[in-house]
Amino acid sequence: MIPATGALIDKTYLYPLRVYYEDTDQQGIVFYANYLKFFERGRTEFLRHMDAPPARIEAELDRLFVVAKVEVSYHASAKLDEILHVRTAVAHVGRVKLRMAQEIWRDETKLCSADLTIAIINRSGKPARLPREMEDRFAALALD
Amino acid sequence: MIPATGALIDKTYLYPLRVYYEDTDQQGIVFYANYLKFFERGRTEFLRHMDAPPARIEAELDRLFVVAKVEVSYHASAKLDEILHVRTAVAHVGRVKLRMAQEIWRDETKLCSADLTIAIINRSGKPARLPREMEDRFAALALD
Amino acid sequence: MIPATGALIDKTYLYPLRVYYEDTDQQGIVFYANYLKFFERGRTEFLRHMDAPPARIEAELDRLFVVAKVEVSYHASAKLDEILHVRTAVAHVGRVKLRMAQEIWRDETKLCSADLTIAIINRSGKPARLPREMEDRFAALALD
Amino acid sequence: MIPATGALIDKTYLYPLRVYYEDTDQQGIVFYANYLKFFERGRTEFLRHMDAPPARIEAELDRLFVVAKVEVSYHASAKLDEILHVRTAVAHVGRVKLRMAQEIWRDETKLCSADLTIAIINRSGKPARLPREMEDRFAALALD
Repeated sequence: MIPATGALIDKTYLYPLRVYYEDTDQQGIVFYANYLKFFERGRTEFLRHMDAPPARIEAELDRLFVVAKVEVSYHASAKLDEILHVRTAVAHVGRVKLRMAQEIWRDETKLCSADLTIAIINRSGKPARLPREMEDRFAALALD
Repeated sequence: MIPATGALIDKTYLYPLRVYYEDTDQQGIVFYANYLKFFERGRTEFLRHMDAPPARIEAELDRLFVVAKVEVSYHASAKLDEILHVRTAVAHVGRVKLRMAQEIWRDETKLCSADLTIAIINRSGKPARLPREMEDRFAALALD
Repeated sequence: MIPATGALIDKTYLYPLRVYYEDTDQQGIVFYANYLKFFERGRTEFLRHMDAPPARIEAELDRLFVVAKVEVSYHASAKLDEILHVRTAVAHVGRVKLRMAQEIWRDETKLCSADLTIAIINRSGKPARLPREMEDRFAALALD
Repeated sequence: MIPATGALIDKTYLYPLRVYYEDTDQQGIVFYANYLKFFERGRTEFLRHMDAPPARIEAELDRLFVVAKVEVSYHASAKLDEILHVRTAVAHVGRVKLRMAQEIWRDETKLCSADLTIAIINRSGKPARLPREMEDRFAALALD
């Protein structure tokens, strides 16, 4: 049983969530933009697990993770009351960029998948590297 | 025809909006929390009309309008594609508080109504008055 | 430690959640409408615990729980990354109405509280009672 | 001046909107998922202009437009109170698929751009063509 804040299994972080009314729309399924909320929750819990929660990174290290590009493929729909799992993995660690691969599953069915490019910037908006030790921890998980 | 940013008619500010998929839920109607988004849009456009848009008030006057209390009664449901009107009026102007009355209508049908208490604070979170001239402009519109 | 789906302790259902970017706004705090999402999640998990999850109630019993009135008082603000608890209790069980009392806490601080009137209707929109056995289970938890 | 519901200029549909508190997050900018809401609003108004509003298409023609794939590139951030324009164009009309190109601009600055693949299905979830006459109207606007 995976804890509410998720768990790292091999190189993939699993984060569970339930679909509530707020997530659904008039078609009776989760609204397409809301999967990006689910992906963000999964990334945030993964970053916490990596000892890099967004609020602390910003306050202590002057670094922000900003989505520069996202490509989402929708395969099947999620519905009210379902339990879903967000799967998050690091695809590649660059100097001022991360590529991440994320998926959302209901049991054995993949509902959607996303490839993301995350820019690492400082509060002035300039590209900036993570501390070397943190960068190494991400690189150790990278799939490539 | 009311402009997209709304119009003041007598002492009520009318702001039109359309219901999109993002606003609806699996019951086929607007999700109850989303009417509070509609109310906020109506208040923001009213504040702009009063020459007090939120971003400027915060940056130039160090004042924030914060909802301290809201009471919403839901009478009928809005659906996808409908055009609604948010009606906003000032109920009472206090020293560090505004009371506002808001309603959402579809044609001649009142869908919901709200009474709000808005605290006026500075960025340190302390109660604070508006500039006297701005306060007078709100008071001139108050229903009480 | 409370499970992700919450737990009933005495007559109050506790449901934990984390604040993510999607919940916050430009003021750096949770947007006022989003607490109503949190309340809804807490009610849904409570209803599941009572063996009355919304999707099943609607499909099997032809009953919908619809918020008729909500009064929310905001005492303090929630911020990014915080863990909150939604507390849900039944205030009163009527024939075609429930009154519920909900609160959101961060540790020992009450952030906001809500009184709700929930109408019980069928899919035709008419007021309708719950099955007697289910009504009794709610009544056994009522605070009044 | 473009009307609130937008306008077709050459082969691009322009739809204006304002950024409200609900759209922003703790970083002071529009949350990345919310641009997908803006894109959806722009598509909906474009479809209305084409005499194909979603609610009517579904009820009268048993057709749903479902996003199968979306690729979004984020170039610059939108902020509170800003007026943005969603630009919507048909890239290609297939038998059971539309490809659309959308962008969001603030004045002369392109904030983000999206390529979408929209599947046309019936309520049973099967791929399905639009009525020939409607398909021809989309094809007449296609960029390819």
